[in-house]
This record gives sequence, C-alpha cells and structure tokens, in this order.
Amino acid sequence: MNKEMKNQVDNLNNIRHSCAHLLAAAVLELWPGAKNAIGPSIEDGFYQDFDFGAVKISEADLPEIEKKMQELLQTWGSFATKEVSIEEAKKDFAWNQYKLELIEEFAKEGKTITENNPGNFLDLCKGGHSENPKEDLKYFKLLSVAGAYWRGSEKNKMLTRIYGTCFLSQKELDEHLAMLEEAKKRDHRKLGKELGLFVFSDLVGAGLPLLTAKGTTVRRVLERFVVDEEIKRGYQHVITPPLGKVDLYKVSGHYPYYKDTMYPSMKVDEDELILRPMTCPHHFMLYKSEPHSYKELPLRIAEISPQFRYEKSGELAGLMRVRMFTLSDAHIVCTKNQAKQVVKEVLDLIDYVNKTLGLKKGEDYRFRLSLGDRKDDKKYYKDDKAWDEAEKALREVLQEGNHEFFEAENEAAFYGPKIDIQVKNVLNKEETMITVQYDFVMPKRFELEYVDEKGEKKQPIVIHRSSIGAFERTIALLIEKYGGAFPVWLAPVQVVIIPITERNNEYAKKVMDELVGIRAEIDSRGETMQAKIRDAQMQKVPYMLIVGDREEKENKVAVRAREGVDMGAINMLEFLKIMREAFPAG
Amino acid sequence: MNKEMKNQVDNLNNIRHSCAHLLAAAVLELWPGAKNAIGPSIEDGFYQDFDFGAVKISEADLPEIEKKMQELLQTWGSFATKEVSIEEAKKDFAWNQYKLELIEEFAKEGKTITENNPGNFLDLCKGGHSENPKEDLKYFKLLSVAGAYWRGSEKNKMLTRIYGTCFLSQKELDEHLAMLEEAKKRDHRKLGKELGLFVFSDLVGAGLPLLTAKGTTVRRVLERFVVDEEIKRGYQHVITPPLGKVDLYKVSGHYPYYKDTMYPSMKVDEDELILRPMTCPHHFMLYKSEPHSYKELPLRIAEISPQFRYEKSGELAGLMRVRMFTLSDAHIVCTKNQAKQVVKEVLDLIDYVNKTLGLKKGEDYRFRLSLGDRKDDKKYYKDDKAWDEAEKALREVLQEGNHEFFEAENEAAFYGPKIDIQVKNVLNKEETMITVQYDFVMPKRFELEYVDEKGEKKQPIVIHRSSIGAFERTIALLIEKYGGAFPVWLAPVQVVIIPITERNNEYAKKVMDELVGIRAEIDSRGETMQAKIRDAQMQKVPYMLIVGDREEKENKVAVRAREGVDMGAINMLEFLKIMREAFPAG
Repeated sequence: MNKEMKNQVDNLNNIRHSCAHLLAAAVLELWPGAKNAIGPSIEDGFYQDFDFGAVKISEADLPEIEKKMQELLQTWGSFATKEVSIEEAKKDFAWNQYKLELIEEFAKEGKTITENNPGNFLDLCKGGHSENPKEDLKYFKLLSVAGAYWRGSEKNKMLTRIYGTCFLSQKELDEHLAMLEEAKKRDHRKLGKELGLFVFSDLVGAGLPLLTAKGTTVRRVLERFVVDEEIKRGYQHVITPPLGKVDLYKVSGHYPYYKDTMYPSMKVDEDELILRPMTCPHHFMLYKSEPHSYKELPLRIAEISPQFRYEKSGELAGLMRVRMFTLSDAHIVCTKNQAKQVVKEVLDLIDYVNKTLGLKKGEDYRFRLSLGDRKDDKKYYKDDKAWDEAEKALREVLQEGNHEFFEAENEAAFYGPKIDIQVKNVLNKEETMITVQYDFVMPKRFELEYVDEKGEKKQPIVIHRSSIGAFERTIALLIEKYGGAFPVWLAPVQVVIIPITERNNEYAKKVMDELVGIRAEIDSRGETMQAKIRDAQMQKVPYMLIVGDREEKENKVAVRAREGVDMGAINMLEFLKIMREAFPAG
Repeated sequence: MNKEMKNQVDNLNNIRHSCAHLLAAAVLELWPGAKNAIGPSIEDGFYQDFDFGAVKISEADLPEIEKKMQELLQTWGSFATKEVSIEEAKKDFAWNQYKLELIEEFAKEGKTITENNPGNFLDLCKGGHSENPKEDLKYFKLLSVAGAYWRGSEKNKMLTRIYGTCFLSQKELDEHLAMLEEAKKRDHRKLGKELGLFVFSDLVGAGLPLLTAKGTTVRRVLERFVVDEEIKRGYQHVITPPLGKVDLYKVSGHYPYYKDTMYPSMKVDEDELILRPMTCPHHFMLYKSEPHSYKELPLRIAEISPQFRYEKSGELAGLMRVRMFTLSDAHIVCTKNQAKQVVKEVLDLIDYVNKTLGLKKGEDYRFRLSLGDRKDDKKYYKDDKAWDEAEKALREVLQEGNHEFFEAENEAAFYGPKIDIQVKNVLNKEETMITVQYDFVMPKRFELEYVDEKGEKKQPIVIHRSSIGAFERTIALLIEKYGGAFPVWLAPVQVVIIPITERNNEYAKKVMDELVGIRAEIDSRGETMQAKIRDAQMQKVPYMLIVGDREEKENKVAVRAREGVDMGAINMLEFLKIMREAFPAG
C-alpha cells in the first residue's frame, strides 16, 4: 500500500470510528440507562457495544437511532481531546463499569488517558477521529444488531453490538449497501435453506452440516468429477481412516502448532487416538508400507479426505467454516528435481477444475505465493537453504506458467512455502480455496525414502495439494457465485417435466424415461402450470419441459429455461443435445 | 438339531476334549516343567493352554508333540474318573497353580471335584470323555500355536495355546485339513497383502485399515454401483457427519446397550461429541428438519456411512472385524401398511446386489429371521403387540417371496425383529453381511411424524437396512470367495498389456488408448514375456494382452486369461465386446 492509499484508509477509519461515538451518543440519549463499551472501526464500517440492562434492542430500533444520530450530528464540532488524570477519568465515568475497567487497565499499563467531546458527548478514547464530523459523518447507515461478550470472553457479560458503516459520499454508501443486499440474497446459508441443500441440527452439533439429497447430489457430482480427472492424470486414490494415534502428529510436528484446533484425543486400549486435522501422516504410512524406486516417482497419493478441526463457535459460518470438512487431498512424493514440474501440473489441474466450475482466472480467483520468514525459527522449520530453494521453485513455476500472482510474507506452512488459490467471495473478500505446499520437512520426520538410479537411499520432497478444495467450502462458494443457479451439470435437479393436465401424465413419464442419465422429476401435483413453473424457477432448476396435448401429439417438449426464456417446442433429440453440451468434456 | 445329531456332536466333542488331555500328557512328558491349564473342545477341534515357563514353543515343535501323543495313546485305557476331596485334589495338583485356582473356585461354588486318568496322566476335569481313546483319538492333528491370557483377562499371565483337531476317520480329517489349507490360501489378510489391497499401520492404530489404490478401486466400483442402483430405486442419498452429540444416542436408547462398544466421547465447547456407532439418529434429524406428508412415504434416506465401534483388540481380524467401517446404510420411513412392501423391495435389492457380486442364494447366503423374546424386557423394548405384528410382517415377506429362511430366537435388535443375510465364509462359517430391521421404537423416541390423508399427525415405522453391507467386510468376503481373482468389473487392474519387445511399446500404447473406461496397465519392464505373464497371473489380472510384431502387423492382440487359457489373437473390437459383457447390466 502506498502512502496516499494509507492516508485515505486512515481517514476512512477515523470517520467510521467517529461514527461509533455518534452512535453511542444517540443510544445514550434514547436509553439513558444504557452504557457504552468499546466502538472501533472495522473493515467496511464500525461497531459499538452497549450494555442495555434489561432493555432488548432489535434491528427495528435502528431507524430511530439513525434519526437521533443525524439530529445530534448537527450540534457536533470537532473532537476536543484532552489528557486527564486517572482520578478525573474515574469520576467522569463512575457510572460506566466498562470504561472504569479500561481506565484501571490503562493506568496499570502506564498509558495516558484521554477524553474527548465533539459537542455534547464525553467519551473515553485513545483518539483517531474525523476532523470535521458535521461534514464527514453524513453518509452513514446502521446495519445490524448482534450479541458480543465484553472483551470477547464468554466468561463476561453478553453485550449488544450495533454494526454500521459510513462512507465519504452517498454514492459510495449506496453502492456498498447494494452489494450487501446482493450478498444477502446470495448468502449460501440462506440459499442452502431455500434450495434445501443442507441443514444443521442442535442435537448433532455446531459446525457439523447434514447434506440433504440435493446437497449430496452436488457433492457427489463434484467428487466423481475430480476423482475421475485425478485418476486420468495419474493419481492413485486411496482411502485411509479419518483418525489415528496422536503420535502421528507428534512425529509430523503438527501437534504443537495445531493442538488447539484439534479435537480432544480418545483413549482406546493403550492408544491415544485423535480425529485427523490433515491427511499427510496417513499417506506417508501408506508410502512407507513398501519400498519405492525412483522409477515410481512422482508418486501421487490422493484421497477424498474427511478432516476435523476445532473452530471456535463464533467463527463457524454455514458450509464455509465447519468443524469437519472433506478435502480433495493429495501428497505427491517426488525428487527435488521433479518438484517444479509436479507443481506445474498441479496448477494446470487446478486451472482446469476451476474453469470447469466456471471460475474465471484473474476475475474469480488468483494465485498467492505465501512465503516464510527466515528470522522466525519458532514459526518455521529452520533450514534457510531449503526455504530459498523451495520459494524459488514455486516462484519460477508461477512465472514460467505466466500465472499472475502476488507474494505474501509470513503466510507459509511451518514446513515450507505454498501457493494459495485465493477466491473472491460475494463480498469481494478473498477466501483461500486451495493450497499447494512444498514440503522439505515431513520427508525427514517420517523418514520417507526412495532408491535412486545408483541403488542409494534418498529422501524425496512432498508436494501437498488440493485440486477442488474442501467440498463444503467449494460448494458454499459456488452457491454464492451462482446465487443458487448451478450450472446444468451440477444442478441437483436438472429438468422438471410439467404436464399441463392430468391426461398428459403418461406422456410426461415417457419423456422422463427418455432422459437417461439426467436428473429429472415430474411435477404432477394438482397445481396450475404457472405455479409449477414458478416453483421450478424458485428452485433454480435449469430446464422446465412443459408437456400438453399439443406437445404430446407432436412428440415434442416445450422448453423453458430458469432465466425465463421460452425456447419453444422441440423434439427430445434436440433437447438431449442441449443437455449433453452442458456437461464438461471428459 | 434332532437327538441323533446331538449325540453325534456330543461324541465328537468328547473325543476332541479327550485329545486335549492327550496333548497335555505329551507336552508334560516332553517339557516336565510345563503346566497345563484348561483344554476344552471347540468348534472343529480343541485347544489346550500351557504355562511353558521360560521355554518358547513354536509350530515347528508340533510334529514332535504329535509323535509323543501317538506313542502315549498306545498306553491309554478308558478315562477312569473319580470324585476326590478338595484336600486330595490340592495335594495332587500342588505343582500346578492353575489347577489349584480352579479347585479353589469349584470348592467355593460347592461343585464336586473329579480327577481322571486314562493311563499315565492324572488330570482335573469335569468329565465328558471318549469311551475308547485308543481307537477314537487316532485321527488327530495339531494346527497352530498362539498366546492366550489365563482365563481371558489381560491382567493375567499370557499362556501358550496349542490348537488341534480330531476326527472319527482319516478321510474326515484329511478333508478338514484340505479345507483349512484352502482357507489359508484364500485368507483375505494374506491375499490382501499379496495383491496389495490394504495395509495396517502401528502408528495409525489397530483395526483401522488403509486401503491402497487397488483396494480403493474395488471399494469405489462397489460404492458407485450400489449408490447408482439405490438412486435408481428411489433412495435419496445424503451425507451426514460421522459424529454427533452423545445425546443423540441417549434419545435413541442405544447408549445403555452400546456404550461399551462406542468410542470415548470428546468434550468440544459445552458439547459431548462421540463418533457414531450407527447412522439412524442422523437420518432422523434430517427427516425432522422439515414436515412430511403421507404422499412422500415411503421416504428412503440412504448414506455411505462411516461408523465407529470399539472392538476388543483380540477380536480384530483384517477387514472382517475393524474399529471403523463404512456401511451402505439406509432408513426407510413408511406407514405400517407399507412396511411389508418396503421390506419386500429391500430383499429384492439385496438379492440383486448379491447376484451382481456373484453370491448365489442358498449356496453362498441365506436369510435368517431374528426374533425377540417377549419375556426379556431388559434386552427388548416392551410392546408385545408391536413385536407380534413386526415379526409376522417379516415372516410373511419371506414366505410370500418364496425366500428360504430359518428362524433364530433372541437375535433381534432391541427395537424390533430383523432379517439377517447370512453369508458363508471360506471356512463354511456364517457371517452376518447385511441386516434389515423393523423398528417401531425409534419413531416414538425421536417423535417422527407425517401428516396423513385426513391432515392428522401420525407416527411412521422405520426399516433400517443395508444393501451391500459394510464395504470392509464385503470386500473381505469377496476376496475369500474369489481367492483374490475378482470378477472383471471389480478387478483393480482389468488388463495388462505386455509388449514382447521394446519395439512393440508404441503399439502397446495405442492399444492402451483404445481401452477407454477400462483399468489397464502396460508392463514395459525389461523382463521376459513369461515373467510378465507370471506376475500378472499372480496379481490375478483377468486379461493379459500380449503384443508382438505379428499382433502389431495384424492390428490385433493375443489374449490370455488369468486362468491360463490362451484365447488367441483377436482384434480390439472383439476384445472390447468381451470386456463390455463382463460388466453388470445397469
């Protein structure tokens, strides 16, 4: 980020943080018993926490608060900031235990304490404000209400958090709100429910999705596609148990790094078993189950691999962040000389998979080269030469393949650098969908070997990689990208046949029988044709085949696409051709 | 079993138990420091446990022991049994702490104590012996040596167990030994290793198999076959997490019955999570996630479901008995009136699946009707009327479908009766491969509902069922049935192309390219053709395509089947036809 950009960001942050003060002032005027806690700027906006006592606040109250904020804003001048003594601050905020707690803490840390007041509202604050509130804070909007523990700890009281945002112009604010509106419509949690793709159950547990028949269809189509493609490309698909002895992760060295995100271990006989947070040790055990020659390398061990990570309940989000996910995982054992070619082939596969999913390179996703830090021996395995070689190899693959990419310091795995495939979600934020890791540490720790041309034992390199990511997250991204209207080959139901009257039911069945290999349903409910079309469109079914007397007589189907396009009456051969062309070549 | 049969069995048991005495006598003569513990007859033979002290015995010692047994046998008369006092017995066996422990126990229980001596060997025994040892014990054979804890508890000393068998004639003994020999050859653990289908790893854990690429191919072909077939038959395949809150199994009522065979629970936040021992509660949660009308019933929820059960380490056996298995599971929610038709369709599916696998009804498998016990309220849910109805329904389905079956008392699930599909393994023993359960309890416990024709809420019935069983066990059964020579459609590698010389490698590749959809490999190692054919046969690859100059010139392939049959040179179209016909219709 250059200096000018940084100034702009700082300015916007100051304005948004100031807006949090304005929100606090308005709330305390409307609810004199309320107490304001902290109110920082955040990405795209700000929030302010309150203790409302016994009062319950909802989003229905936001317009009134906004009105009061506009009213107060007219009376505000600049933020007059003054340093005060601990005693003075304590006196001023004797009514507010949250501010008192902060004052005590600042005092203990020897920090200076500042108060500010832009007009009629005294607040405790470390500063960073708009210089001209009356002008700067005009274009704000309150967005939502949520619960949040004081200082983020569940041991403390649950406060009420009001989120809002503020921009420099009405146009920017409107654009942002429109994007939020669109994102809300495309939210995979909302669409997942509307389209009946997955559910959660309190009795099963948080972060553990249950895929319905429709969600499972999408998952199965993706899984078979990727397994078949990988086998075609020389991968050996295996199935290993999703748990193992804790020792596996002690040998790998994951245990100290990942302990907090692993499930608790289980004592079975004399063994400590644990649900696996990654697949590598299992694949290494398979590799080690027999001797290997250089002739077998690169050896590509792949698995559709269930993995378990403990995510904090507050971080769980639909299918995007879960406590169990299924990764299209692989570990490619190769010589150091082969590593570049292996990574090149992996990026080709990823590009192919993403293209098939309809993700456009540069637009929907980009590559990130995630580097280590030679100075941080605690976070990264110490071997400067190996790090240099590995980072160089990955960078060269990206350059030679003319892949656009950016570099990120200090984002590597502890055992080596990686290339991350960063996908833009519906809020224009980037999520890591796939990683490709260059590993020179595990082969050492697990004593992986191969026999080289001279009959000598050598240590290979391992490339850890996914190809389509974790199915849960990839499905979430696809739902949001397509707003639920999956490409034909992925749609859980591809065709709904709609008989116009009951006497067309027989013909509908005949049409159904001709749709071999296509996921089709007949809607023979006693509803009107219009209602059936509307329901199929709501369910984002790609094609509706409407069959009445005329179609039956002419041995045709009247095709309607979910976008509302009427494609007229065509014969089945023509329709089957349309369907065939919608499937990825393979 | 009729009276005559029972007498015969008792007679054989007596003979085998007597043979255990003979074994003890021989061992104590050969190793005077050894102490004999117990020596019962078992199915197909007997065993005798010994404390050999510091001496290590192996199977290499068995011939010498057998020789001594034959020698001693010549001196034996009938088993003279006499009742003795505790003191007398203690005196006689002062040298043997195992016998002393038994004497103490018998005394405590008030049992009479008997000793016997057929000639030159005094033993403590409750009786049941051959009347004419010299004749009856002639046809014996010692089979194997294993470790076994005294009285089966790992807290006690590990003793040495010698297994043997004894028959009434040399012919019967020979037949039995031949069957054991064949079983050993077909043992799926042995073949699994030789054919590279699966491995175990100490670091992963006991009972947790790792399927190699080849094993995974078999599993994937079976899985896709059964999933596609079930979807065709109206099943809705879902994917639910293989763990959930312990509460799920408290609601279901499984917890008290299955607690000991479940994995330990894991505390995650406030929840107690546990790996699932069965899928039912998860499917019920999906069912309950939306309201259902009678029009949707029967509703068939299916899943390829990973399940976890704690089996004692001594009971683990290759893929046959594991600590994690993957069941082709389903729960069919239906009205009571639909139950019979649903079970009928399930049996049809099972027959179809088994037929496709090559399992012959009556020969390889049969149906068992497993009934409850109205008097046992502790083991079975109390509702006599429901049990009567359910057992009647299952029996009628079996009768009306002309399925041969037998009935077994006291083999039901706690929530209802079931039909078990009993498969004969390579030792002619029956294993339960699949169960179909009629459940009138879970719908009540989980408050499952549907709305009937009158708009009233009703409680459905649930049929729990598998179709192909647990993949692990089914694969084990298939390996043993086929001695590793899988039917073509299941074979991990279906075709090996063998170029005769290096100059045929290009043509081999052309042949490979024409084998679309077929799992083929080229063996281009620098070995002789004969060596390559031998290796392919060892790996039980169904077809070898040998390509030399002549085949290349004539654009043909010389086909050789794994059984050794030379099928001559044919063109690719003809060979592809042979392959197509080897796949199940579908």
